[in-house]
Amino acid sequence: MPSFSLHPQLALDCHPVGDLALSQVLLLNDRRYPWVILVPRRAGIREIYELATDDRIMLLAESCRVGRFLMAVFDGTKLNVGALGNLVPQLHLHHVVRQVGDPAWPGPVWGHSAAAPYRAAELAERIALLRKGLAIDA
Amino acid sequence: MPSFSLHPQLALDCHPVGDLALSQVLLLNDRRYPWVILVPRRAGIREIYELATDDRIMLLAESCRVGRFLMAVFDGTKLNVGALGNLVPQLHLHHVVRQVGDPAWPGPVWGHSAAAPYRAAELAERIALLRKGLAIDA
Repeated sequence: MPSFSLHPQLALDCHPVGDLALSQVLLLNDRRYPWVILVPRRAGIREIYELATDDRIMLLAESCRVGRFLMAVFDGTKLNVGALGNLVPQLHLHHVVRQVGDPAWPGPVWGHSAAAPYRAAELAERIALLRKGLAIDA
Repeated sequence: MPSFSLHPQLALDCHPVGDLALSQVLLLNDRRYPWVILVPRRAGIREIYELATDDRIMLLAESCRVGRFLMAVFDGTKLNVGALGNLVPQLHLHHVVRQVGDPAWPGPVWGHSAAAPYRAAELAERIALLRKGLAIDA
């Protein structure tokens, strides 16, 4: 059985936050939106329905935990959750906190405009916040 | 407790297919993409994490059933699954079969371009196909 490794495009676009029971937690490097991606550590999976049932339920639980935390801490208008994968087929689940008046509002964030990378200090702060809120060891 | 009723914008944009155990099944009226929306019949819910745990798991099971069926019957390149709700906050989960070269490929379908409505005969055929494949009574 092949082992899991993160798709290089996700590694390029994101900063690693740490691991939940099933998923690798990534912060997309775009300071305009609180944007967390979960990648189940299972090799060769493209679609949610390809996961074993237990893994699906674990992904859902992790997604709800991430979504609820992000919406609470950033006081979002609406959470956008999506598994697209047209460009990066490895299964990854986006969680994006949307605000009225954010750059892409009310359209989708995917493909909207180039990311605005975090500065070093705010990146460190954001990752620390996520690790604390999601109980992920550094 | 308020009772569930479908958001009028979803009623306007979609054709009803029928009911699964938790969700109302809708076909988006855009013949360019096989596009099915699940709406859990629960009042006042905007986010997946607001559903009771049993309902979440049921929504996931229904989503996987719909997604697997659509991808098999339309031989899709990639399934796009998403809960956005920036315009219509009632929780609804999109399932869109994507093909290399479809009008929005590889970008997201949401907000891309105006829908191309089904013609009557193909609509009836599509709804019959979905009802049969998802074991929904007419």
